[in-house]
Formats: sequence, C-alpha cells, structure tokens
Amino acid sequence: MAVLAVLLLALAGGSAQAAEAEWRATDPDSTVVMQLDAGDVIIELNAAFAPATVAQFKRLVRQGFYDNQTFYRVIDGFVAQGGDGSDIGVPSDEPTIKAEFQRDWSDRLQFTVVQKPDLFAPETGFVDGFAAARDMQSGKAWLTHCPGAVAMARGNDPDTSRTDFYVVIGQAPRYLDRNLSVFGRVVFGMEHVQAVRRGVGSADGVIEDPDEHSVIRSLRLLADVSTPERSRVEVRNTNSAAFRDMLDARRHREAAFFHHTPPAVLDVCQVPNGGRLVE
Amino acid sequence: MAVLAVLLLALAGGSAQAAEAEWRATDPDSTVVMQLDAGDVIIELNAAFAPATVAQFKRLVRQGFYDNQTFYRVIDGFVAQGGDGSDIGVPSDEPTIKAEFQRDWSDRLQFTVVQKPDLFAPETGFVDGFAAARDMQSGKAWLTHCPGAVAMARGNDPDTSRTDFYVVIGQAPRYLDRNLSVFGRVVFGMEHVQAVRRGVGSADGVIEDPDEHSVIRSLRLLADVSTPERSRVEVRNTNSAAFRDMLDARRHREAAFFHHTPPAVLDVCQVPNGGRLVE
Repeated sequence: MAVLAVLLLALAGGSAQAAEAEWRATDPDSTVVMQLDAGDVIIELNAAFAPATVAQFKRLVRQGFYDNQTFYRVIDGFVAQGGDGSDIGVPSDEPTIKAEFQRDWSDRLQFTVVQKPDLFAPETGFVDGFAAARDMQSGKAWLTHCPGAVAMARGNDPDTSRTDFYVVIGQAPRYLDRNLSVFGRVVFGMEHVQAVRRGVGSADGVIEDPDEHSVIRSLRLLADVSTPERSRVEVRNTNSAAFRDMLDARRHREAAFFHHTPPAVLDVCQVPNGGRLVE
Repeated sequence: MAVLAVLLLALAGGSAQAAEAEWRATDPDSTVVMQLDAGDVIIELNAAFAPATVAQFKRLVRQGFYDNQTFYRVIDGFVAQGGDGSDIGVPSDEPTIKAEFQRDWSDRLQFTVVQKPDLFAPETGFVDGFAAARDMQSGKAWLTHCPGAVAMARGNDPDTSRTDFYVVIGQAPRYLDRNLSVFGRVVFGMEHVQAVRRGVGSADGVIEDPDEHSVIRSLRLLADVSTPERSRVEVRNTNSAAFRDMLDARRHREAAFFHHTPPAVLDVCQVPNGGRLVE
C-alpha cells in the first residue's frame, strides 16, 4: 500500500496531495554543497529566475573553478563576496552573463503571498521556497535580497557578471532588488557563512591580505557527491497549507507572551525558511 | 584657541555646533565590553528608554555576574541569548525588573526620521544613535528589534526579566517591538556575536550540552577598564546633518550602478550605524 501511495503521489505531480506535503526534497542537480572551514553550507539554485546565471555557475562548479578561492569582500551586516576576484579587477577569461534581475510573471509559478503591499514592492511572497516579489501591473517577478540570498556580483554595466557571487549576511538590502541577479539561496549552514572573516568598511569590505580571507574549500553539485556521503536536502514546501498556516500564525500573534499585539504585517525576509538534512 | 573652542563646545551642550559633529564618543559609564573567544564586542546601553533594566544590568556587570556564563539559546537568523539560564528555569536570587517596553515621547528626545509610515510603526528613526519608532498618536516611543539590539529575556509575565539577555543576530524580528525591554545595542564587534555556536530549531535553540555553549569571558563597563587598555568608542551622531545626508542618499539612489531605481523607502534596521574604536 505504501508503495502504491508513493507512486500515485509521484504521478500526481503538482496535485493537491503534493501541495500538502510540508517538506520537499531539493533537486540534487540544483543543489550545491559549499565546504567552508566552519562547516558545510547548502545552496539551492533557481533556474526559473536566473537560467543563464545558474547554467554558468553550475559549469564553473563542475570545473572546480571555485575550489580554494576565497571570500575577499565581506561587510558585516551586508554581504560576503567570494570568487576569483574578477569583480574587483582580477583579469578573467570567463564570459559575462546577461543580467537576470527579474522575469515575466507566469501563472505557472505559484506565489504564496506574504505581504501586500510591502514597503519595497507591491507584493512579497514565496515562489517554490524562494522569497520573491511581484508587480502584477508590470507583470514582473523577482527574487528578493533576504539573508541567505545568493547573487552575482557585477560592475556598473548590468551585463558584467562572470564568476563572483555574494551571500547576504545581514538585514535584507532590499534596495538591491532588481539590480543584481539573485540565483540561489542558502538553505542550510548559514551560521558557517556568518563565521567568515570580515573586512573593514573603509575599504568597502575588501580584505587586502589574502592570508586573512576565509577559504572556499570546494563547491560541489549535490548530484556529483558520491552516494554514501550525500545527504538528502529538504526544504519547506511554501505552497503547502502548513506553510500558509505558519504565515498566518506569525501575522496574528495570539500567544500569551504578546502583551502588545504586533501589527498584522510580515517581512518576507523574517519568515523562518531553513532546510534540513535527512540522512 | 583649540582649548577655547572645545570649552565653548562643551558649554554649548546640545547646540547646533555639537549637532554637526559626525561622530560622538559614548559615555564610558554606559558602554560595556563583552569579551568573547572570537573577539571583543562593544555594547552601548540606553538608560533613556530602559532605566531600571540598565541599572540592574550595570550592577550585575560590576559584580562580575556574567563572567564565564554562556550563550545557551542561539537560533541562527534570530537571537543569541545568554546569562545564567534563569530564563529557562535555572533558579535565581536576582530581583525581577518591571517591563520597559516603551516610554512616553518627550520633545527633549531628538528623533531623526527614517521612514514614515513604516510597516511596523507609524514612524521609525534614530534617537541618539538607537534605532527607534514612535507613535505620536499614543505619545509613545520604543527601541526597535534591529540586528545588534540587546534586550532582556522574560517569561510570559511582562515583569519577569532578571539577568538573561539576548542579542538580535538576524533579520529584524520587529514583531517583538514593545514586547520586550530593549536596553542596548552592539556598536562594535557584531561579527563576533555572529560567531557564537547555534542550537537547533527543534529545541527552540537551546543547546543542551554546556560544553557546546559559547562562553562570555567577561562583561565590563568601559568606565571600569583601566586607562591603558581602554579604547575610546565613537558612534555616529544620528542628529547630525551628515547622518541625515547619508539617509537621503540611501533613499534616493543616483549612482550609475542602479539600473532599477529602488523605491524611496528605508528600513531603519538596514541603515549602517556601526561605531569605531579610537586608540
């Protein structure tokens, strides 16, 4: 019976049953393991919003491009930027990537509304686990700069991303939304990203001495990690009734702890949305 | 002439001249040095918003109460809570403190507006360096739960804080505003707080094994640190024209980098507001 149920669920695809599951496994082909000295960090990629960026990033990961590179620009409360330094002038042979700041809204995407209106966008919500925003008037949607967002660094020209990326490590810099290509999110091990060494503000976070950089030991696609070492990574199904109930409970605080009832608003970047490893 | 100028400035108190200074020194009697293994953290206390809490905290600091205590409840993206564990059931002889969730607005306070309206409050801004909010209709003001905010833990009863405190280490949990007594803010070394060991969400962040706790080596009032070791701590003067100009520049992004002009709004918790040490 259990086998049959699983089979039916698999066949049902985006059915009501699947939508009810509280957790979903990430696609190993869109999941990256970043080895830092502090511990492993798991990043989920998003090809629905940044297909060209994800394609180049995966190619570079598979080439071992990022192995033993570093976080060379780190500002506490803002971002940790890593790669080969091509974003700060180190020459690079890698091709540039066209900007993927936003995409056309499609009804094939499922949007779980969090806040409407939000300060920075007409609507915020989640699209398949990713914090996002949309503007139905312009018909555009984009991934938001929440803590854990992974995006491509660039120069002043929008189409100049190559290899170097940053992870948001502080209060969401939402003013960057639609100005950089967000292409992933940290779903596990964010505290290890928080442990990377900071630069100083007066140098725009750039750490001059390479010996002071925190090292990226390796980046691997989960699909390429051999089976005995590989964990299954699960993330919340943000389309599920359980997730919507959690949002409602956060929007309307009824616990005895709350002596002042907070306003019935939510910050999409403050919704707990971490993943888990299933051995 | 320089001596005379300093003297005049001192006599002038809250004058226009003083308001123009971009940085101000913190009061050593309201400044705490927290020694962690990762490095020193500087906390500025706020007796204008939480006088009873600050008085008890300073008494405990001077007694050495916090020395070698630990961060025993740490949730990544949320808070790091430390002390003797009395907030999670360890018996305590220390007196409880009456809630100081908000205070009456007074025109003696200077409010530098950041956002009006904000999602969580009619107005947000800074009061003498501290991120705050106010509601002129009710005549109340309060300190906001931004990253780096230091507040007292408590039970369900509002008046049950004793000794244990938390530091906000993630996206601002603004729904806690006016529900806990915020009494200080980290002005330096926030990355060292970010390095404390996390607990797991399923245990509400509580780290069962005391050997796994990050230790608070000591808390000292800066005034009690002997002169040769003591740094001068400076923070931004949030009443200054320079600070207001910085807010305006963040509100209206004119750099060539911005291809999509962000909305002219600001998140009070996303304004860079760190301090500096002057040797």
